[in-house]
Amino acid sequence: MSAQLLIHGTIPNRLAHTRELMNRKSIHTLLIPSADPHLSEYLPDCWQGQQWLSGFYGSAGTLIVTADFAGVWTDSRYWEQAIKELKNSGIKLVKLHSDQSNPFEWLSEQTPAGAVVAVDGAVISAASARILGDKLAKRGARLRTDIDVLNEVWQDRPDFPSQPIYQHLPPQAAISFSDKLAALRVSLKEKGVDWHFIATLDDIAWLFNLRGSDVLFNPVFLSFVLINPKQVTLFVAQGKINAELRKMLELDGVILRDYSETANALRAVPSGANLQVDPTRVSVSLLENLTAGVKLVEGLNPTTLAKSRKSLAETDHIRRVMEQDGAALCEFFAWLDSALGYERITELTIDEYLTAARTCRPDYVSLSFNTIAAFNANGAMPHYQATKTSNALIEGDGLLLIDSGGQYLGGTTDLTRMVPIGTPSEEQKHDCTRVLKAVIALSCVRFPKGILSPLLDAIARAPIWAEGIDYGHSTGHGVGYFLNVHEGPQVIAYRAATTPQTAMLPGMITSIEPGTYRPGRWGVRIENLVLNRKAGKTEFGEFLKFETLTLCPIDTRCLELSLLTVHEREWFNAYHAEVYARLSPLLGGVALKWLRVHTVAI
Amino acid sequence: MSAQLLIHGTIPNRLAHTRELMNRKSIHTLLIPSADPHLSEYLPDCWQGQQWLSGFYGSAGTLIVTADFAGVWTDSRYWEQAIKELKNSGIKLVKLHSDQSNPFEWLSEQTPAGAVVAVDGAVISAASARILGDKLAKRGARLRTDIDVLNEVWQDRPDFPSQPIYQHLPPQAAISFSDKLAALRVSLKEKGVDWHFIATLDDIAWLFNLRGSDVLFNPVFLSFVLINPKQVTLFVAQGKINAELRKMLELDGVILRDYSETANALRAVPSGANLQVDPTRVSVSLLENLTAGVKLVEGLNPTTLAKSRKSLAETDHIRRVMEQDGAALCEFFAWLDSALGYERITELTIDEYLTAARTCRPDYVSLSFNTIAAFNANGAMPHYQATKTSNALIEGDGLLLIDSGGQYLGGTTDLTRMVPIGTPSEEQKHDCTRVLKAVIALSCVRFPKGILSPLLDAIARAPIWAEGIDYGHSTGHGVGYFLNVHEGPQVIAYRAATTPQTAMLPGMITSIEPGTYRPGRWGVRIENLVLNRKAGKTEFGEFLKFETLTLCPIDTRCLELSLLTVHEREWFNAYHAEVYARLSPLLGGVALKWLRVHTVAI
Repeated sequence: MSAQLLIHGTIPNRLAHTRELMNRKSIHTLLIPSADPHLSEYLPDCWQGQQWLSGFYGSAGTLIVTADFAGVWTDSRYWEQAIKELKNSGIKLVKLHSDQSNPFEWLSEQTPAGAVVAVDGAVISAASARILGDKLAKRGARLRTDIDVLNEVWQDRPDFPSQPIYQHLPPQAAISFSDKLAALRVSLKEKGVDWHFIATLDDIAWLFNLRGSDVLFNPVFLSFVLINPKQVTLFVAQGKINAELRKMLELDGVILRDYSETANALRAVPSGANLQVDPTRVSVSLLENLTAGVKLVEGLNPTTLAKSRKSLAETDHIRRVMEQDGAALCEFFAWLDSALGYERITELTIDEYLTAARTCRPDYVSLSFNTIAAFNANGAMPHYQATKTSNALIEGDGLLLIDSGGQYLGGTTDLTRMVPIGTPSEEQKHDCTRVLKAVIALSCVRFPKGILSPLLDAIARAPIWAEGIDYGHSTGHGVGYFLNVHEGPQVIAYRAATTPQTAMLPGMITSIEPGTYRPGRWGVRIENLVLNRKAGKTEFGEFLKFETLTLCPIDTRCLELSLLTVHEREWFNAYHAEVYARLSPLLGGVALKWLRVHTVAI
Repeated sequence: MSAQLLIHGTIPNRLAHTRELMNRKSIHTLLIPSADPHLSEYLPDCWQGQQWLSGFYGSAGTLIVTADFAGVWTDSRYWEQAIKELKNSGIKLVKLHSDQSNPFEWLSEQTPAGAVVAVDGAVISAASARILGDKLAKRGARLRTDIDVLNEVWQDRPDFPSQPIYQHLPPQAAISFSDKLAALRVSLKEKGVDWHFIATLDDIAWLFNLRGSDVLFNPVFLSFVLINPKQVTLFVAQGKINAELRKMLELDGVILRDYSETANALRAVPSGANLQVDPTRVSVSLLENLTAGVKLVEGLNPTTLAKSRKSLAETDHIRRVMEQDGAALCEFFAWLDSALGYERITELTIDEYLTAARTCRPDYVSLSFNTIAAFNANGAMPHYQATKTSNALIEGDGLLLIDSGGQYLGGTTDLTRMVPIGTPSEEQKHDCTRVLKAVIALSCVRFPKGILSPLLDAIARAPIWAEGIDYGHSTGHGVGYFLNVHEGPQVIAYRAATTPQTAMLPGMITSIEPGTYRPGRWGVRIENLVLNRKAGKTEFGEFLKFETLTLCPIDTRCLELSLLTVHEREWFNAYHAEVYARLSPLLGGVALKWLRVHTVAI
């Protein structure tokens, strides 16, 4: 899914064809969100229409095309990338700030009365379509969701993915499908609901203990689920489930139907049924199939919350996975230290060797996202992606940012470390040290159970704000269990909405990944995953604390140790002592030696 | 406004009479919010109906009465007080938690279909009435806002306040009425609005540079304001404005009408007019007077935001006031230290001497709230009030909490200090030290301009959460300028809604007042006021920092100094150095000596 060098003229030609069709169909404005029929963050190729039409390869953006304007709205993580990728395309980058107009605001301000805004109803959520439709109606304009403009111009559109589905088995799959289903039915019953429709792929994979390969890095499969008072129907394309698995699912009482029959099944939901659905995670086109008599109960899918709260058995597997993943990192770092200055190393070499180190580890399945190996200025792009045609040689002085992770049968990893190249500057070391302070500040906090996760962000940012610095991405996202590396409902981000569903509960796994990005110069990020653990019940309530799950040394050569407080040094030394104790049994030779050197107390 | 000892039987009798009337009028449930027609926090006596009927004297509560139930919902600040005051009254205390059912939820769950819930429409906001009405409608029940049950049973209801209104003059009133009005009209115009109705008393006092004495401690006067494209009408009861002031206001173009004519004036707003109003701060009864053709634009009153952002001239006055207020505190503390062990000192004596010390200071007007002097167990009630019949003798060992403030022509003060009595215990000192850490942590933070204030709360609480402790009140409230000691729109409270209007902007004054409350044992709170000041514009955005305005030593005898970090000691010493430098010129004799001893570097 790396960015391709587009032949000069390709994007303008595609835009021209699109505009011709828009004109023929009397469409004033075309809206192309980065989404699929499951409102996923990472998309199968056949829904990468925004990439195809714009040449922008960021994983979050909104493309808007009118007769005389084309623009991609994206957040600060992708600005530098977008500037490069959109160059000479005729498409403008619109920087998405929390306090600036978003694409919907732009549409509601710019669309003339009487005009039609078209969006493929299969890839916009019911909630978003409702909001946008209302805004446009106020302008006297109209939202149409029944035309898929892109499909008509996109000649070489990739096929629907056809990868097989497989089981996530015990012991790693620690809770059975039937137990998960029973708990889900209890959640539904509590809301007085007995019908439920799920479109979110990770919820479905989690519920059934099934995995797939339809989306790069996310072990999910394209599917929908409809639950009624007596039955559970799983909608998947034919050929994805083999006979053996089909039999097993049928024994579990699961009804299998073709993916394309989902709309029909929704049409058949009887009038008077109470159906729970998350309108932000189901497409408007699908929901329109329901008859008027179906009573919608809107809210987060109960599976999203259940999935976020890892069981004790799952967290045990995750701890073992973290040890294997950390050991792979040590092997890689030992090689890197020995090779730097002797071999020609680029950002792509980093990816290659690091992936190889992970691949050797037991229960490894795949990467959990594209490795980000970003040297100096490239590190200032939080979601930078080196490509065959554009990648930096690691030489001279500076900072190499490596953000990577793996999918293992027993968990999903995601960590970021800074690597010193030559001699990092004082300013670079100061940036790294402040980011480390931020990691420590949040890692050590104890907090009331149920606090809304965005409210914790300021604790991480305070040491960085102290220098007049901030970063545009969230400090922390939820992480799945051999599932998506980004999952909800919690998010540690002061710009995020403090909805009740963001409450911090035991068993959730979240990243802590503050950063500092200096465009054109360098970027710094340090990232660990942490587990919400119970921290006692006092007369003041129940408290939680974080257990740091990620096990990998933090390189002191990037740090200005004199800036650390006594408390921070204590955390640092305790962390490295644990890293050494848990990784050393899995390592030998130069990797063990590297680990020993890099976990010496400061 | 202190709690009275109610003659045994008084409350049950009043409840019985109220229930008789409810029965006659077919009212199933009576709702009595703590509010007046201006939705004020502190109320004139004639709207203290909740106190009259329940005997509960807390300043925030909701009373609900049915034939077989009566309960007061109130937050943790008032629980201990409510337990005492509601004893034997037949009225239940319902503890209001952020995550528990609030009175509206209770009503929507408990009200039978067909039943009528009555509330005086003059003292419930349009927004609340809308929410409650909708909830009840879903139950098949009904909200009536057209019956004032209380008025019929409340025989000795106090008169409408008749205190005179006076001018807040330059130099302290640093911005003229005409300049404020012009800015308000610009704000309205930006929203496409040219009519505006204001019911909030502090907004009105601020806009006109007028003050009054209708509400204890809050220098406001009962009034409404209606602004149309050409005129400004101030509605106040006759006799409150003398001839000279009337002439001056009329020269400024202000039309004066009687308070009772407000409803008529709203009825006369022409159809088609755009009227801005804050539905959370205007009673439903008043808003019902508008004709259907008036288009409501709902939002925070622009004056609320403008008032919160103190001008440079105003902040200069406030700094001088803080010096005078701090000097008064030193004189009081010097006396207290000399008298303890020699004189009989009760919590009431504290109030008496402290008020006397303030009264001597230039430009002093009144207290800004009832002094809270709370010894040991009484300190565990955050809003404790000593009374003539119930007050503690200050003797033995422990902690005395003093929370007090003054109204001066040049500003409003509010501070809390802990006083050691005899020898505080180790645990008491630990509590005080952690609370001090919380004050320092938040006082030192630099943060992005415009951040939503509730998001900063975790920074203060982290050192307290670390010990499994939390407190039920907000860490910080806005403070007026010779106006209400509690004002918005900002609030530092993790349980508060993160609405856009809570954004932190330069010039706002907020309290920082973390605490620790151990019911039946002691309470700790340390409170300073801080000013939002610009802290530079960097490539990452604009930042703000706090300037601590409050000037008063923090007693080291309550602290365990070994728990402070190097950074915290530095803050503490720098603060005390400034306190000494700025207060010493205003003091002499024993007070100066006391100041010197209590600001020695640690």
